[in-house]
Amino acid sequence: MFQSFDDHSDPSCGAPRAALLRAELRRRSLDGFLVPRADAHQGEYVPPHDCRLQWLTGFAGSAGVAAVLGDEAAIFVDGRYTLQVRDQVDMAVFPAQHLIEAPLTGWLAERLKPGQRLGFDPMLHPINEVRRLKAVCDAAGAELVAVDGNPLDAVWEGRPAAPRGAVALYPEHHAGRSASDKIAEIQGIVARKGASASVLTQPDSVAWLLNIRGSDVSHTPLPLSFAILPAEGRPQLFIRSEKLSNSVRSTLSDLVDIEEEGAFLSGLARLGATGAKVLVDPNLAGQAIADAIVKAGGTLVEGAEPVLLPKARKNAQELEGSRAAHRRDGAAFVQFLAWFDEHALSGELDEISAAEKLEHFRAQTGVLKDISFDTISGAGPNGAICHYRVSRASNLPIPVGKPFLIDSGAQYEDGTTDITRTLAVGEMTAEMKRHYTLVLKGHIGISTARFPVGTTGAQLDVLARIALWKAGLDYDHGTGHGVGSYLSVHEGPQRIAKTGVVPLEPGMILSNEPGYYPAGEYGIRLENLEIVTGPGPIEGGERAMLGFETLTLAPFDRRLIDVDLLTAEERRWVDAYHARVLDELAPLLADPILTWLEEATLPL
Amino acid sequence: MFQSFDDHSDPSCGAPRAALLRAELRRRSLDGFLVPRADAHQGEYVPPHDCRLQWLTGFAGSAGVAAVLGDEAAIFVDGRYTLQVRDQVDMAVFPAQHLIEAPLTGWLAERLKPGQRLGFDPMLHPINEVRRLKAVCDAAGAELVAVDGNPLDAVWEGRPAAPRGAVALYPEHHAGRSASDKIAEIQGIVARKGASASVLTQPDSVAWLLNIRGSDVSHTPLPLSFAILPAEGRPQLFIRSEKLSNSVRSTLSDLVDIEEEGAFLSGLARLGATGAKVLVDPNLAGQAIADAIVKAGGTLVEGAEPVLLPKARKNAQELEGSRAAHRRDGAAFVQFLAWFDEHALSGELDEISAAEKLEHFRAQTGVLKDISFDTISGAGPNGAICHYRVSRASNLPIPVGKPFLIDSGAQYEDGTTDITRTLAVGEMTAEMKRHYTLVLKGHIGISTARFPVGTTGAQLDVLARIALWKAGLDYDHGTGHGVGSYLSVHEGPQRIAKTGVVPLEPGMILSNEPGYYPAGEYGIRLENLEIVTGPGPIEGGERAMLGFETLTLAPFDRRLIDVDLLTAEERRWVDAYHARVLDELAPLLADPILTWLEEATLPL
Repeated sequence: MFQSFDDHSDPSCGAPRAALLRAELRRRSLDGFLVPRADAHQGEYVPPHDCRLQWLTGFAGSAGVAAVLGDEAAIFVDGRYTLQVRDQVDMAVFPAQHLIEAPLTGWLAERLKPGQRLGFDPMLHPINEVRRLKAVCDAAGAELVAVDGNPLDAVWEGRPAAPRGAVALYPEHHAGRSASDKIAEIQGIVARKGASASVLTQPDSVAWLLNIRGSDVSHTPLPLSFAILPAEGRPQLFIRSEKLSNSVRSTLSDLVDIEEEGAFLSGLARLGATGAKVLVDPNLAGQAIADAIVKAGGTLVEGAEPVLLPKARKNAQELEGSRAAHRRDGAAFVQFLAWFDEHALSGELDEISAAEKLEHFRAQTGVLKDISFDTISGAGPNGAICHYRVSRASNLPIPVGKPFLIDSGAQYEDGTTDITRTLAVGEMTAEMKRHYTLVLKGHIGISTARFPVGTTGAQLDVLARIALWKAGLDYDHGTGHGVGSYLSVHEGPQRIAKTGVVPLEPGMILSNEPGYYPAGEYGIRLENLEIVTGPGPIEGGERAMLGFETLTLAPFDRRLIDVDLLTAEERRWVDAYHARVLDELAPLLADPILTWLEEATLPL
Repeated sequence: MFQSFDDHSDPSCGAPRAALLRAELRRRSLDGFLVPRADAHQGEYVPPHDCRLQWLTGFAGSAGVAAVLGDEAAIFVDGRYTLQVRDQVDMAVFPAQHLIEAPLTGWLAERLKPGQRLGFDPMLHPINEVRRLKAVCDAAGAELVAVDGNPLDAVWEGRPAAPRGAVALYPEHHAGRSASDKIAEIQGIVARKGASASVLTQPDSVAWLLNIRGSDVSHTPLPLSFAILPAEGRPQLFIRSEKLSNSVRSTLSDLVDIEEEGAFLSGLARLGATGAKVLVDPNLAGQAIADAIVKAGGTLVEGAEPVLLPKARKNAQELEGSRAAHRRDGAAFVQFLAWFDEHALSGELDEISAAEKLEHFRAQTGVLKDISFDTISGAGPNGAICHYRVSRASNLPIPVGKPFLIDSGAQYEDGTTDITRTLAVGEMTAEMKRHYTLVLKGHIGISTARFPVGTTGAQLDVLARIALWKAGLDYDHGTGHGVGSYLSVHEGPQRIAKTGVVPLEPGMILSNEPGYYPAGEYGIRLENLEIVTGPGPIEGGERAMLGFETLTLAPFDRRLIDVDLLTAEERRWVDAYHARVLDELAPLLADPILTWLEEATLPL
């Protein structure tokens, strides 16, 4: 099993560990210290070696930060984690604050006193975040101190070792392009931005660039590493040497100079000493990176990491791989749906058994590399918690009479999947069907959209919401995120959301996942992945338009659709999608699953 | 008649006047000079006294700028005016450039030489524009010189006098609030922005604040003036004294100190000398204003003009006035529609006779103060020119067999109207009906939208376009602009457009005007004004939503609607709207017009 349902959080650790940290801060003459959830790569998954926030507080969520002052501390988490944080953290030691509504900066502004020294680890905080922190300290007359060596690490007994996952070459028949070709493209971008080199701090950027994959963190096949990419000449890869076999090292050596990960900052200093202009992403790169370059005499060119957009534009080979992965994953998912249908009414299923069974069907493909994130298996009220993660403690039986939400994905070598379905369990009320159908209308609104070149995800977002808005309903998350090619299931810069300011481009993969979550009742979310297609002509039209090709192949639950709420166009879309699902998956299925699918995909 | 159809443009003036200006520049040791269309208020309408660009080049459009160097010149206009500029301007003297695609800054960058001196009138160019110009001059090693006295004015023989339109008090039963109440609100905003005073350069801001109206420019009842609004104490109004009757002066004197318009810059200097922090809108206020404040020792607080948002949020009295104005205007417009229907097939109508007749029906209300802009009366191919203005030279007969587009509005003391309808003239083809219906679907998409607090016009814009986009069609203008209360028909900051980043708020009035323009064929645009309503509950929902209440009352042409392309919801909307139009206008109409309207508003 790739998914674990254990819950290691222990709120009682907070008090003694805060005391240990405070003692260390006093030794270093610091009046406070910040402990973010992030590691030096600002990624979604962090290896146990870097789970400092969890060690200190017990909080296991994917975003947050703690502040520890001499006599007071707090933990800041976003709306997803306001319940979880109370279960996992001792609120007497680390009272929970809302990351957005009562942010860290305001909390510090009210407490910092003139002359105080607030420490932070400059590898863990991006440049722009440090600017905001520095403004707060300046206003309070306090000093923001970049520590030399993290004081928490000094008192962390039994700290897990840094990961040493083996690096594998990613075959060109999946990647679609050679690493040298990609390097040349990115070097061109760096040069056009007026920089002489760029720093890559995102491991998935490095993995994409060099056609390598790894196994350092859960669910995302990336090797933790850094790179320096000069506008001309050989890139430098900074990675722990244990991760490289002789053959991988030999192949990579044709492309890059390989150095130890620990030599990264000194590599930046060498670069700075040449007077280089270095392209750095201020939202991703740690302050230590900027400091190393500038102190050595280099200058910063601030801008988005140059790999982000080229990586987001999948090539034909990557798209073909993703289509194959989605057919395979769809067949496994349909087996799960048929199994669920057979057993759900027994009342014996629970959230964990459903997630286990789904992973089982995916594993049966024989090529499952990992799940792409912990399956969100939400029975009844747990379904209304958008980012619910089931544990042995939270596990609920799946009740008859409520919709069941399951959001899951897989990592195959040819592609990454992410699908959410909401399933009828027994008789569904008219209200449940209305909610489901309003969400489905939003899903179809995105899927059927056509749009001119230059259109952003922010412009399209309302198409997923308008049916809900007209009913006085909404959901408090974005509509879609980018997805990598056998890389991170959450990948930028494209998004379908208010914040999605990047124009959508052909080849980008995005999720399409509107939802609705009546608190304490149940959750509804309907998610397919979509490829941005075009621009292509439309009969009777005069402007070429982009559009979406749906990757995900699995039926929507017909028992939850109120056909009267659909327009003729929407009904045609569902029938056509279902016909396609049957057509593409039938060759991969046998009875009784095939018969089940034929019934599940009958026209509305 | 408020509308004139004469076309005074004379391209032959360009050569001799450019020569006059160049001689004056040589006398002042300037190597070039910029002549924008704008006056010191950056408004849409400019009095003849300030029509410098038209005097110099002949160009009569509402936006543009000319650059005159020693041996070369050019005029920059946007996409609306690429055809018109060629008719009105001598292209040998002022070759036309596209304001967006080949901007002034790029043109200057290619031509300015080190040491050259480029002049500009600092009252006519906003602060942010001067920053862009200065960057270009700096890069070229040239100097950007703020002239003391406009050199064009020095050689402009027969320059019209500055306007001296009488100022009238705007009654509180229309304004809904006293001027002193408004002043107190804006003073609070100025203080909260950390400023000790604010400069108002927009005459409609001053008019709204002080409950006054004027008659200095066409179609917009505003008195050209400036104001300084201290965070505490009495505001200063800078206005030509001839505009004020004794009684108006006496009433205003209770609220403000009145000074001559010519004393504005010295007033700013006095303010600056007190060390004031002055809130200035860098997109609206001329550089001369910033210079006057800063040179005297004041500092600038840059931000949006504080009147903009409060003015945009119409109060109950203003909304009631607007509803009354729209009923009156709707009745006049329906008379026009019935008249048009009776005569259109004769083939004897032309664009001017249609516009004249429409103004005639409005004038018959007995309370028409002005039209709110020159009626866009577009027959056949002229309808495809979005911002077409008919002149004696361009006037076309209205052809049978093509849709006819008419976009017009009125100024009544209780409200400003703006309506576009597209009318069938004889037999319409299936394609014309399809185009019309796609535009109507977009119009309904906006009109029926519900949306949460905080939603911007940029988020809603796609609702007006998606039906067209799916057909491979689009329109190259925004979907909606703000509208004033017996003030400017184009008023910010709210917009329904990609650039509409301001959240929509209850009481704002916006146009809803999607269109489609097959070049050389005909134009389709369907425009109603809408009030932002709510937030209010929705049955079965859980979140209060904003929405729109339609102000405009006039039928859509049923002969152009392809009912098969409408959803059931859209069809219900048209029928309900038409029933409301009949219901609200019937008391104002008599036969045969009433019978005509009854037929025009029959259910689809």
